[in-house]
Amino acid sequence: MGKISVVGIGPGSLEDMTPKALETIQKADIVVGYNTYIKLIEDLIKDKQVIGTAMMQEIDRCQMAVDHATAGKTVAVVSSGDAGIYGMAGLVLELLLKLPKEQRPEVKIIPGISAVNASAAILGAPLMHDFVVISLSDLLTPWDLIKKRADLAAQGDFVIALYNPKSKKRVQNIEEIREIMLKYKSPQTPVGIVNSASRLEENAVISTLENFTKEEINMFSLVIIGNSNTYVADNFMITPRGYHI
Amino acid sequence: MGKISVVGIGPGSLEDMTPKALETIQKADIVVGYNTYIKLIEDLIKDKQVIGTAMMQEIDRCQMAVDHATAGKTVAVVSSGDAGIYGMAGLVLELLLKLPKEQRPEVKIIPGISAVNASAAILGAPLMHDFVVISLSDLLTPWDLIKKRADLAAQGDFVIALYNPKSKKRVQNIEEIREIMLKYKSPQTPVGIVNSASRLEENAVISTLENFTKEEINMFSLVIIGNSNTYVADNFMITPRGYHI
Repeated sequence: MGKISVVGIGPGSLEDMTPKALETIQKADIVVGYNTYIKLIEDLIKDKQVIGTAMMQEIDRCQMAVDHATAGKTVAVVSSGDAGIYGMAGLVLELLLKLPKEQRPEVKIIPGISAVNASAAILGAPLMHDFVVISLSDLLTPWDLIKKRADLAAQGDFVIALYNPKSKKRVQNIEEIREIMLKYKSPQTPVGIVNSASRLEENAVISTLENFTKEEINMFSLVIIGNSNTYVADNFMITPRGYHI
Repeated sequence: MGKISVVGIGPGSLEDMTPKALETIQKADIVVGYNTYIKLIEDLIKDKQVIGTAMMQEIDRCQMAVDHATAGKTVAVVSSGDAGIYGMAGLVLELLLKLPKEQRPEVKIIPGISAVNASAAILGAPLMHDFVVISLSDLLTPWDLIKKRADLAAQGDFVIALYNPKSKKRVQNIEEIREIMLKYKSPQTPVGIVNSASRLEENAVISTLENFTKEEINMFSLVIIGNSNTYVADNFMITPRGYHI
């Protein structure tokens, strides 16, 4: 019986990938992942069988990984950021569970630095307090449910992190979310945008709820909207925890 | 001018600490942190000046770190998990901002694997979808606000991760949160509890919303409450992303 691991490789740089993730990839016979993520770790996997395919073929790709593991191979499915946050951990487990128990290879999920952790560190300390993580991709989730969640999160004065805020085909969702936020949050609420965190192209900007959708936002962006106490000073975005200093 | 870094050391094992965090600690003259976390990295810091104090002295400890950095030293403030999630990133930045700009040492925040990432990986794939992170500690946050946030999060059918769910002195908050959850979520909703993730004492249990508060929960626990689609199979807790497989 083989083994399958779902490995969070972190947001980009190998400097942000844990030793456990590195070791798991090094021990694998076969590495499976979306081409963009395979490229981030290409130096690590030169001598390995690599199964990389284009986006939108997640199910086939993970099924191939499961099949190889069932056949006795040691397989690492790589997922950018944390494999458990909008990553491949769930899909691989779901596919494994379709097998009879005696045929299931051993499975491990290896956590990684997710975009929300990496982006927060670049912006300063915008999380620090209770926060919400929402994906604006409506491919797998009804848009009405996403909007409802954004509304409740804004009512609760949470810090709000938005994954998949915008893509070439999906440009209007972020505008609708901004409108929902403005029902409860001040137009001056700080909003941080980090593009390609931990990669060579990394850049970050701090804007306001009123204006942030005018900034460059794409499928490699992570947006963090502050709570009512979040402020900006010396280009840091900070949500105070509540210490009296 | 010195340097100060706030370093997320991950949940426990050095295997879960990133190379960037490791390198930052190795380069520091002085390492500052809560004794429990200093102990997790003691092999790394044998030749360094260590400033460790007991819990509840965060402000004094971080101020000492800032003072040493202002005086020209390279200082690493270590924070368990991710420095930006209920960690020391915000406090250090707030203290730095009290200094005149020309006296401020260079500052970096180094992200780490937070308890929510590590615990999710141990449980299977319980996050995967939109989720909320709430701390049940009411030391720095009014309890009514925490309850309001929990209520809104449950209404939104978010997966909900609870930090600081219980301590020796604070045993009732988790019971109140359970009651709030039961207003909206099924009593059979899976609840995962991970104690001391990534440390030698690590253990995990999967229970239900109805029964989970009967399990061992302490100040080193992380609790993850599922959404309406979360299920348990073969001892994995899984929140499906929504793929049709």
